[in-house]
Amino acid sequence: MKILMLVAHGSRNQAANDEVSRLAARVASLAQGDFDAVVPAFLELAEPDIHRGIERCAEMGASEIIVVPYFLAAGKHVTRDIPLELECARTGYPHISIETSQYLGENSAMAELIIQCSQNTR
Amino acid sequence: MKILMLVAHGSRNQAANDEVSRLAARVASLAQGDFDAVVPAFLELAEPDIHRGIERCAEMGASEIIVVPYFLAAGKHVTRDIPLELECARTGYPHISIETSQYLGENSAMAELIIQCSQNTR
Repeated sequence: MKILMLVAHGSRNQAANDEVSRLAARVASLAQGDFDAVVPAFLELAEPDIHRGIERCAEMGASEIIVVPYFLAAGKHVTRDIPLELECARTGYPHISIETSQYLGENSAMAELIIQCSQNTR
Repeated sequence: MKILMLVAHGSRNQAANDEVSRLAARVASLAQGDFDAVVPAFLELAEPDIHRGIERCAEMGASEIIVVPYFLAAGKHVTRDIPLELECARTGYPHISIETSQYLGENSAMAELIIQCSQNTR
């Protein structure tokens, strides 16, 4: 069982966290065939945190988890904090393959997405 | 003259700000025909700030500016801080049309971009 875990920063504003959860649901409906499930998790300020997110994946029977950092820049959250959390998770779940993908802002299609945004003014 | 202004949060980490500036340059090369120029600006912690960004657009001869918020969630930066800065800018440059587009995280293609990211593991 292959799971995509979407890791966002997390916010004190619950509406922002709910936005991430809704996005994860949209990803799930689009990713059928590639992934058996999509689980949202948050680095801080919201639940489930990364530890609990991995635990949830394990309970669902994950054999493989691809972590997608929902971050725009390669700051310390992407380069240090998320890798540290995942290193810890790998120790706890040695039978699960846990890999990290490129972070969102790194995707080469980002420039096109910005142009698409510019065409939707308020 | 129509300018796309890409407004990011801004970071103490200069590499993250440079990433935004490089992205703005990529947007500029893709947006030829739609926009005459692309100018990056930062809400805080980096230069140019929004005020200086609008000033730069005005110096370039802008008649129309489309502001694209490079933000993932509709937190207070998107709903309050950027609109306040732009309201102030409109007073200073009444001859320039300044509009805001949807913010990045609002784009309906975001789910597809996340799946694309998941296919690029490290």
